[in-house]
Amino acid sequence: MQGYVLPVADAPDDRIDLRSDTVTLPSPAMRAAMAQAALGDDVYGEDPTVNALERLAAERVGKEAAVLVASGTMGNLAALLAHCQRGQRVILGNESHIYHYEAGGASALGGLVYHPLPTAGDGTIDLAALAEAAATINDNHFAPPGVICLENTNNRRGGVVLAPEYLAQVHALARAHGLPVHLDGARIFNAAVALGVPVTDLTMHVDTVMFCLSKGLAAPVGSIVAGPADVIARVRRARKMLGGGMRQAGVIAAAGIVALTEMVDRLAEDHVNARLLAAGLAELPGVQIDLSKVQTNIVRFTFAHPRLSVDEFLAALRARGILMGSMSHTSIRAVTHYGIERMHIEHVISVAAEILA
Amino acid sequence: MQGYVLPVADAPDDRIDLRSDTVTLPSPAMRAAMAQAALGDDVYGEDPTVNALERLAAERVGKEAAVLVASGTMGNLAALLAHCQRGQRVILGNESHIYHYEAGGASALGGLVYHPLPTAGDGTIDLAALAEAAATINDNHFAPPGVICLENTNNRRGGVVLAPEYLAQVHALARAHGLPVHLDGARIFNAAVALGVPVTDLTMHVDTVMFCLSKGLAAPVGSIVAGPADVIARVRRARKMLGGGMRQAGVIAAAGIVALTEMVDRLAEDHVNARLLAAGLAELPGVQIDLSKVQTNIVRFTFAHPRLSVDEFLAALRARGILMGSMSHTSIRAVTHYGIERMHIEHVISVAAEILA
Amino acid sequence: MQGYVLPVADAPDDRIDLRSDTVTLPSPAMRAAMAQAALGDDVYGEDPTVNALERLAAERVGKEAAVLVASGTMGNLAALLAHCQRGQRVILGNESHIYHYEAGGASALGGLVYHPLPTAGDGTIDLAALAEAAATINDNHFAPPGVICLENTNNRRGGVVLAPEYLAQVHALARAHGLPVHLDGARIFNAAVALGVPVTDLTMHVDTVMFCLSKGLAAPVGSIVAGPADVIARVRRARKMLGGGMRQAGVIAAAGIVALTEMVDRLAEDHVNARLLAAGLAELPGVQIDLSKVQTNIVRFTFAHPRLSVDEFLAALRARGILMGSMSHTSIRAVTHYGIERMHIEHVISVAAEILA
Amino acid sequence: MQGYVLPVADAPDDRIDLRSDTVTLPSPAMRAAMAQAALGDDVYGEDPTVNALERLAAERVGKEAAVLVASGTMGNLAALLAHCQRGQRVILGNESHIYHYEAGGASALGGLVYHPLPTAGDGTIDLAALAEAAATINDNHFAPPGVICLENTNNRRGGVVLAPEYLAQVHALARAHGLPVHLDGARIFNAAVALGVPVTDLTMHVDTVMFCLSKGLAAPVGSIVAGPADVIARVRRARKMLGGGMRQAGVIAAAGIVALTEMVDRLAEDHVNARLLAAGLAELPGVQIDLSKVQTNIVRFTFAHPRLSVDEFLAALRARGILMGSMSHTSIRAVTHYGIERMHIEHVISVAAEILA
Repeated sequence: MQGYVLPVADAPDDRIDLRSDTVTLPSPAMRAAMAQAALGDDVYGEDPTVNALERLAAERVGKEAAVLVASGTMGNLAALLAHCQRGQRVILGNESHIYHYEAGGASALGGLVYHPLPTAGDGTIDLAALAEAAATINDNHFAPPGVICLENTNNRRGGVVLAPEYLAQVHALARAHGLPVHLDGARIFNAAVALGVPVTDLTMHVDTVMFCLSKGLAAPVGSIVAGPADVIARVRRARKMLGGGMRQAGVIAAAGIVALTEMVDRLAEDHVNARLLAAGLAELPGVQIDLSKVQTNIVRFTFAHPRLSVDEFLAALRARGILMGSMSHTSIRAVTHYGIERMHIEHVISVAAEILA
Repeated sequence: MQGYVLPVADAPDDRIDLRSDTVTLPSPAMRAAMAQAALGDDVYGEDPTVNALERLAAERVGKEAAVLVASGTMGNLAALLAHCQRGQRVILGNESHIYHYEAGGASALGGLVYHPLPTAGDGTIDLAALAEAAATINDNHFAPPGVICLENTNNRRGGVVLAPEYLAQVHALARAHGLPVHLDGARIFNAAVALGVPVTDLTMHVDTVMFCLSKGLAAPVGSIVAGPADVIARVRRARKMLGGGMRQAGVIAAAGIVALTEMVDRLAEDHVNARLLAAGLAELPGVQIDLSKVQTNIVRFTFAHPRLSVDEFLAALRARGILMGSMSHTSIRAVTHYGIERMHIEHVISVAAEILA
Repeated sequence: MQGYVLPVADAPDDRIDLRSDTVTLPSPAMRAAMAQAALGDDVYGEDPTVNALERLAAERVGKEAAVLVASGTMGNLAALLAHCQRGQRVILGNESHIYHYEAGGASALGGLVYHPLPTAGDGTIDLAALAEAAATINDNHFAPPGVICLENTNNRRGGVVLAPEYLAQVHALARAHGLPVHLDGARIFNAAVALGVPVTDLTMHVDTVMFCLSKGLAAPVGSIVAGPADVIARVRRARKMLGGGMRQAGVIAAAGIVALTEMVDRLAEDHVNARLLAAGLAELPGVQIDLSKVQTNIVRFTFAHPRLSVDEFLAALRARGILMGSMSHTSIRAVTHYGIERMHIEHVISVAAEILA
Repeated sequence: MQGYVLPVADAPDDRIDLRSDTVTLPSPAMRAAMAQAALGDDVYGEDPTVNALERLAAERVGKEAAVLVASGTMGNLAALLAHCQRGQRVILGNESHIYHYEAGGASALGGLVYHPLPTAGDGTIDLAALAEAAATINDNHFAPPGVICLENTNNRRGGVVLAPEYLAQVHALARAHGLPVHLDGARIFNAAVALGVPVTDLTMHVDTVMFCLSKGLAAPVGSIVAGPADVIARVRRARKMLGGGMRQAGVIAAAGIVALTEMVDRLAEDHVNARLLAAGLAELPGVQIDLSKVQTNIVRFTFAHPRLSVDEFLAALRARGILMGSMSHTSIRAVTHYGIERMHIEHVISVAAEILA
């Protein structure tokens, strides 16, 4: 295969990509770690870098055990399969990522029954509604409850943060009904940084937590599920069945270790940038933002401009090298992340101002 | 997290690990490619390295489209989900990897019905049995057929090769019954190299093929599913649902490109080494090998020694830095791969001779 | 087994059981029909009485084909399995029987994803919400839509009726998105009688309809799914897989023929009795009824009494031989049916008045 | 619906139908019992006849609890769902009814993995093979074992009987591995009668047993699952989810009580008739029967005639009012049952002799 040219990273993308923090590129330290990582066959449990990452991750979120998975979707799915048997209900917010964006996998593959409950603007689910859903009714007409899922920060609600007190209330309620709580914590470190608390103040109130090494932490691939050792053993089994058993996964895990050790604190910058962006956009015609909801790295705003539709506005931005995402015919999302600096934000605001003037 | 030490590959393993070719470590070229790969968000279809790999892989096996997956298990599962609806039968060999080693995922997650048929020593399934299984009977008592799966080379049969003629016969039979053929070609390049034919002489006779970039091709992570564009679109959907959508997957794909471009031809060395090993072991007391079955990089032999059990023999080898795998109380498997040289084989034979003397 | 005594119907129950119309006992004509029905093996398609019922049922609701099933739950489930593949969304009301009372079967057994939408007090689902849910988005994050389900009359909304005009609108919307409509018409004849229209004015707007021979029509066992011949063939396949293939099912079907031929028109009496009951109860302290919602044979009311809880009121009624059902801590349901006469209603009102005075 | 004519049993079928014992028509006592049965709503647990049947059935097979289901297929499926979680293996004979004739329901609907093992001519599965399959291997590659299924009598093996000693051995083996045993005892009373032992001598060696009230016992509809109370509670839940909750199911149960109390002993006649038929047919050209396998009411024979194919022979019989079933291109099945008398057998033999002469 002479002459085959491998695409290399020599032509840096100069677009300002705010569609999601999933587009983040790995740091030089991550690339270096991947190049030199000690490796082994993780299906045999022999990859030292994976093992190191899993120990580190468990310790970070204060859980007994952790397992590396290929994605947040896989982590959530494997956790639900580990918690629930066929026909049990997954009680979750109707504005959650698991319910909306994971292809219905828990039902399609696991025979679980989604039980979506209304999600408030602050990302919470009403406790009385949760309690009613969590109650087991001794009647064969009903699918029995299996797990309660929370999401922190809540993506579709614009990155809002659930406080430890709320998590504690849900946990107590779940225990009273004998149910586990699973946290979709894809951006749990954003929540901890925003609250200024150790992440364990949040994760202590759930049985299992999934969080992403990608997104704000900038690793190219990988998420973690952490929890009690017996549950994580079942997550491992589910992971294998889903095809998530990877061989020399240390190449991925190496970047994950860098993510956990070097990239958490810098999330604060993303939050500053998000507030800066929100404040700037809020001044512009056609833009409506509830600034109290800009709590982390996501800026979600309503767009109703006399001249431009959402799609037209996004196209105009794109033509000038700026990418945001449409969430509906009337709302737009912009996400800050590693690689987006204050100067980019200022540029975005001035370009947007020009377009909307 | 000051002081955290990332495990690095500075202490090379000097064991001779013949348990599987899955333990293979990536080549320096792969590590370099991973470190400098151009990246993007593959969930958005924007990772240039993933796109390059998928084009290359499709071209190599002569298919319209290809998709990168996290593992061979994921590739097989996603392909079966793409081919079959709930309740259809997966017709396959009772000595196949899919049936034995993939945690029953097609039934557990996809609602498919395994229909295992006897597998001959040469890895073939009797054509008459296949035809009977492939027939649709218009009667609601029966689960309808959905797909025929073959495996080339066949792992549990010791790496034996299915010839193009046999594949063509199965394909014709499948078409006559309106069924697709999926090939578990985890080691399809071993088959092509052993036969001395282009891999397309094999893959032209199947609708979809899964092959591994890991194993003999030495990439750390990743497999490919290739086939018609519409089927691969469904495989992508299944991959997303399984949690196999990875973000900057170019870090993995970069090694995969090296695997496909630089590592295929060298499989011939593994085959030479396997035959060398088999011939050497065959001379030793307690070892019985059908040398005609040592066609690729797997040496599977029966072990019945007057003094040592399988486990004792393996333990003795292990104590001297040599790893093989037990397949049952009476059989052992050794697999050659990248990193195993002729001198290692000679060492293994002499150590084994010493132990068994 | 000498001396074994078969329970016989010689001691008529003199309770007034308003918990549900499911408690209805078969008519003498039904018992006679069951005793003399011509029978055969329906799994072979040879039961003449089943065949006669299925032809009659299809004709009654204006569909090409029909199939007898063991229950409404089985009929709905088999229809959903026939309409949808693994991972498709079942779009339905969040106050529907399928979503609440069928044990999550479509997800648990069929790998389908419930997508519940808010249900108005009149039983309708907002058309804009339906249209949004029915749209296929070409993105692997989302489970694709599979079917829209309506319920007429709506049980949890107190037996309210969906008008032909609304059904037509939903049907048009579904067709525009290439989706079938399934109607849970457990009490569709109640709807037709209440509206004073032929049942086909309702069923013409759906692809498949399930209706019960039990409940208001008083047959002891059995429901029907009717629709296009190819869909019903798939329903038959699903029925067999679920274990609903019954041998000499003519014994059940015989009562079903009587139900369809003799019991439909008398539903009007149940509706008169329900309105009578509602009007009487509405006068009593602690009872709140929206009489506009008492459209068929179900009376659902809010109960908030200064002295008695729902459970205490129900217990007091029960002590006097009257049974109603609690739907929550604040609401009660009473259902009229075959065997409940005007005099029973008057008795119930006077007893309730006495208890609540 | 004036003028609608209900098909009645006034034109008795004078064919001799030996295709299966599933074609059996109910006895006059059954029809009478159905016509006068005390009824209630069995979904509320209030049908006195169902309750009486379930108590009687549990007592008959020596189990704590029992539940009425719509069919043998439903009983087996609900039992497997009660015993196993998603992804567990169902270890069973490759010639079993569950594996062949139940539409793959355990995989399709329950996410269970069939693990078929070779079935000997006498209906047994090799104990060593069972033990290997029953072993749990602590490795995520493998689907874990969930249940062992036996079938007594074995349908596809021609009604052969499993002896108590064999059942006891399998039970001991299962217990040693912590697995339950489920018995597909569709014709378990045939086995008991053939062996001349109480049926409890057989059922004591299994955890759950399904048996049919139809088939040899001649009830029109219905089967029973019996076992420990906690397992039967889960079977009830599964039954509801499958749509097997029937309202006034006492109409069916009444016939079931007659079946259990009046029809068991007469199975001996069917066995005499089967042996008579077998002996007669064995004399004819083209017929090969292993008489040692004619142990109950099934006669299965190989047919290879110089002039007639299987289909031609069956057509010739059918033209003279005699029905048998083809099992393959070379084998035929005839089944004796209630309504088939010695004179019919003699007639069949003489007609067959005439055709084959």
